[in-house]
Amino acid sequence: MDHDPLAPAPGAATHAHHGYIGDKPRYLNRLKRIEGQARGISRMIDEEQYCIDILTQISAMTSALESVALGLLEDHLGHCLLDAGPDEREAKLAEASRAIARLVRS
Amino acid sequence: MDHDPLAPAPGAATHAHHGYIGDKPRYLNRLKRIEGQARGISRMIDEEQYCIDILTQISAMTSALESVALGLLEDHLGHCLLDAGPDEREAKLAEASRAIARLVRS
Amino acid sequence: MDHDPLAPAPGAATHAHHGYIGDKPRYLNRLKRIEGQARGISRMIDEEQYCIDILTQISAMTSALESVALGLLEDHLGHCLLDAGPDEREAKLAEASRAIARLVRS
Amino acid sequence: MDHDPLAPAPGAATHAHHGYIGDKPRYLNRLKRIEGQARGISRMIDEEQYCIDILTQISAMTSALESVALGLLEDHLGHCLLDAGPDEREAKLAEASRAIARLVRS
Repeated sequence: MDHDPLAPAPGAATHAHHGYIGDKPRYLNRLKRIEGQARGISRMIDEEQYCIDILTQISAMTSALESVALGLLEDHLGHCLLDAGPDEREAKLAEASRAIARLVRS
Repeated sequence: MDHDPLAPAPGAATHAHHGYIGDKPRYLNRLKRIEGQARGISRMIDEEQYCIDILTQISAMTSALESVALGLLEDHLGHCLLDAGPDEREAKLAEASRAIARLVRS
Repeated sequence: MDHDPLAPAPGAATHAHHGYIGDKPRYLNRLKRIEGQARGISRMIDEEQYCIDILTQISAMTSALESVALGLLEDHLGHCLLDAGPDEREAKLAEASRAIARLVRS
Repeated sequence: MDHDPLAPAPGAATHAHHGYIGDKPRYLNRLKRIEGQARGISRMIDEEQYCIDILTQISAMTSALESVALGLLEDHLGHCLLDAGPDEREAKLAEASRAIARLVRS
C-alpha cells in the first residue's frame, strides 16, 4: 500500500514497475521445478534414503531458490533505477538493501 | 535401536543407521510446508505482487530449508558417532564435512 | 555532491562516484576491528583454546565483514542510482548483481 | 595419536582433545593471510578504489574465513568422534550442531 501510492484502478499500470513480468513464465517454471525438488526430498525422506544424499538435494534446492531471488532482485533494482522518482529513491534503496541483507544472511 | 521402534523386519538393518526415521513425520510435515511456500511464491509472481515481498518469502523459505538440513545433519552426525566402525569413521567424517561445506556455501 | 563535502580538489572527479568517502573513517575503523578479530582468532588457535569458541569468533568476524560489504553495496547502489548515465545503467546493474550473488554465495 | 606427536608434558591432557594442534602452523598461516586481506581492504577503502573491487576482496576474505572454520570443525568432529565418552556425546553433538548452524547462517 505504501509502496504504490499512484496505483490506478485494476490493470497493467499497477504492475508495470514490478519488473519481472517479462520473465514471468520462466520464473513460474523455475518455481515449479523447485516445488518438484521439495517433493523429491520428501520422497527421499519417506523412503529413508541416505542422509548425505538428501542434504545434497537440499543444497541444490537452496541454490535454485537463491538464483530466483537474485534474478528478481536484479529485475527490481533495474526498475528501481529506471522508475523511482528522486524523492522515493532513498526509501527504495533502503528497502532493497534490507532485502539483500536478508538474502546474504539466510 | 531406540530411534526405530517400528522398523519392519525386511530392510531394517539397511535403514537403521540413517537416523531420521524417528522424526520422519515431522520432517515430512516440514517439507510439505516448504512445498506450500514454493506454491505461495509462484502465486505471488503470477499475481505480480511486490518484488520485495516475494524476496522476503524466499528468504523465509530458504531458512526453513536450512533448518531441515541442519536437523538431518545433526541426526546423521549423532548416528555416525554412535554407529560408525573405527575403520569407516574417517570416510564418514570427510563425507559429512563435505556436506557441511555445501550447506555453508549454498 | 552531498556525500563528499571534504573531497580535495585534485582527483575529486575520479573518486566522486565511489560513494563511500563520507563514511571512510567509519569503514576504516570497522576494518581495523576486523583485523583485530583475525589476530584474536590467531591467538586463540596458538593458545589451543576450545575449538567451538574459536568457531563462534569466526562467525562473529564473518558477520562483521558481511555488514561492511552490505554497507559498501548500499552506498554503491545509491550512487549508481544517482550518477549512472542512461547508457551505463545496464552494465552497472549487471556488475552490482554479480557482486550481490558473490556475497549471497560466499 | 597422529595429531599430537609434539604434545608437551604439562597441560597436554587438557589440550589433546582440541584437535587442531597438528595443523597449528598451517592455521596460523592462514589467519595471517586473512589479517593481510583485512589490511588490503582497508587500504583499498583508504585509496577510494572501486567499490565492486572491494566487495570482490571481501567475498574472497569471507571464503578464506569459512575454509578455516570448516577445517577446524572437521578436526573438532573427528576428535569428538574419537574421544567423547558415551555420556558426553549428546552434549558435544548439540554444541557442534549449534556451531554449524551459526556458520550456515552467518
